Amino acid sequence: MSAVKQGYVRPLDFKHGRIDMNFGAGGRASAQLIDELFVAAFDNEWLRQGNDSAVFTLAAHERMVMSTDGHVVSPLFFPGGDIGSLSVHGTINDVAMSGARPLYLAASFILEEGFALSELKRIVGSMAAAARSGGVPVIAGDTKVVERGKGDGMFITTTGVGALANGIDISGANARPDDVVLLSGTIGEHGVAVLSQRESLEFETVIESDTAALHTLVAAMLTASNGVHVLRDPTRGGLATTLNEIAQQSGVGILLDEAAIPVLPQVNAVCELLGLDPLYVANEGKLVAVCDPVHADAVLAAMRAHPLGARAARIGVVTEDAYRFVQMNTRFGGRRVVDWLSGEQLPRIC
Amino acid sequence: MSAVKQGYVRPLDFKHGRIDMNFGAGGRASAQLIDELFVAAFDNEWLRQGNDSAVFTLAAHERMVMSTDGHVVSPLFFPGGDIGSLSVHGTINDVAMSGARPLYLAASFILEEGFALSELKRIVGSMAAAARSGGVPVIAGDTKVVERGKGDGMFITTTGVGALANGIDISGANARPDDVVLLSGTIGEHGVAVLSQRESLEFETVIESDTAALHTLVAAMLTASNGVHVLRDPTRGGLATTLNEIAQQSGVGILLDEAAIPVLPQVNAVCELLGLDPLYVANEGKLVAVCDPVHADAVLAAMRAHPLGARAARIGVVTEDAYRFVQMNTRFGGRRVVDWLSGEQLPRIC
Repeated sequence: MSAVKQGYVRPLDFKHGRIDMNFGAGGRASAQLIDELFVAAFDNEWLRQGNDSAVFTLAAHERMVMSTDGHVVSPLFFPGGDIGSLSVHGTINDVAMSGARPLYLAASFILEEGFALSELKRIVGSMAAAARSGGVPVIAGDTKVVERGKGDGMFITTTGVGALANGIDISGANARPDDVVLLSGTIGEHGVAVLSQRESLEFETVIESDTAALHTLVAAMLTASNGVHVLRDPTRGGLATTLNEIAQQSGVGILLDEAAIPVLPQVNAVCELLGLDPLYVANEGKLVAVCDPVHADAVLAAMRAHPLGARAARIGVVTEDAYRFVQMNTRFGGRRVVDWLSGEQLPRIC
Repeated sequence: MSAVKQGYVRPLDFKHGRIDMNFGAGGRASAQLIDELFVAAFDNEWLRQGNDSAVFTLAAHERMVMSTDGHVVSPLFFPGGDIGSLSVHGTINDVAMSGARPLYLAASFILEEGFALSELKRIVGSMAAAARSGGVPVIAGDTKVVERGKGDGMFITTTGVGALANGIDISGANARPDDVVLLSGTIGEHGVAVLSQRESLEFETVIESDTAALHTLVAAMLTASNGVHVLRDPTRGGLATTLNEIAQQSGVGILLDEAAIPVLPQVNAVCELLGLDPLYVANEGKLVAVCDPVHADAVLAAMRAHPLGARAARIGVVTEDAYRFVQMNTRFGGRRVVDWLSGEQLPRIC
């Protein structure tokens, strides 16, 4: 992203204007969009420098973490958030799940010709607010434009870097038999919120996405204990898929207690109506932690003391299992296998 | 990107298969695509770890550099390259233009439903080859799928990080009057190659894109001299736009010598035919360097000694100019202003 202060003939019309192909051509219109929208909204020293890359420093002896995520959620606006806040939260969370402190973000926009500048401004404002509130600035960016019918409004790819302190070793491969599985709160809100918006479903209560940046929750957990082995946010594919990934990577089984998994009654109701299983519905502000059993209480207490972990719960244990199955003791006293999401439950949910 | 080794029922059909929505849903099909395509092609320890972020270390006291770029080039394949190699070269170059050593890349793929797995495999293979040959591994990634008609085959966003040694201060704002402007080679090949392919134009000689990773050229230049003030790759908007950006950021003018700017005769011929000005046509393997006049010969010699700078030339000087104009002494003895690219010359060129 190269920001260039120039004497533009007239400012962009953020009320009625639309994206045309010129905004992606790298000339004056591109520079104007960068100046009047991106640099203004994200407002930081790196973007103001206007070079094609951003320079930052790092404390010595820290390891770096990098993660990237494309966002294609449809619709772009949904109860509780939009593609802008989601794209900031999602990448902060991916970096945080390694145990790292997220430091900086880069954002790449792919815009469709004809997209309203008013919507773009709203989304960029929402990104900037999320970045500021999380303390993780967007320091580099890029904008491309594709012809009408070759995109879908806008896509945003965010990439995050973070610093990982020495001694932290958190990975999907670190779950061990007898470890405890903790969940930071209720599941299914994000997927249900997006789906309701997409299908124009109207329910008595609006279900809001749980989209949130989890890095301060992670920091609180790691301060409370060094017994956290795995952290992961159950996004696409939901809790069931995330737990299967962990079981697979660690070569273990997981046994869940259905009654302990918190789900809002209204989410359960919508899922029943639509034939969805909340275990497979995406979350954007929840995390799963697998902990040493000795440390589980301390970690759970730290989670519950944080606003984003108030409804945290112990939902299962890690088992020895050569087949790496995730199983669940049901409310009715039975036991069933919780398989991978095999097909598509909800496309374009993030 | 989470890679999960599982017993898939059958391997993906890279000959006849196509992308369906399931490949983006985060379940088994997503995991299979990651394993059988991305982890196999990029083949490095970070992707094999299968976490949502990649961890790496850095020498103490180095500053970090980050840059991101979306790639929407159309068509996906063109003489001399494809979107895969382009997306690796483009981001390596953006990082290198700060004077940094590019270290790692992240890649985010937005795929259209129905896209042929055979093309995807070819493109990922081309990315992997470019990353390997440049010594800059792709250590993190993400894949999303959008419905048919909501994308255009595939878009790739690459983000790069690099390490900037102490003492290096290269920026678009550092050009000073009397500095010398160097160009690493002939201009216009990339834009003409993509356009010829897009319009199915057939010329006697095929013009190939110049797409290339310039970081080793930059390293050679910085080893030869500490007099490099500005580095920039003239991509979208071409040489004219890049020089206007530098003039604007540094608060200077630039005076070019048209006769000194190298252009292949066949590029000139095609540009004439199509009504294009090579000064505004995108390059993907060229750089502009603004140098202290005392060091210019040393830098130019280092460029010419490198395969990617064999046709490097001294093309102009930096002037004092409150209006920050880029001007050019023409072949015919006149002088004209070289303005910003104001509209769209060639959309979706990178």
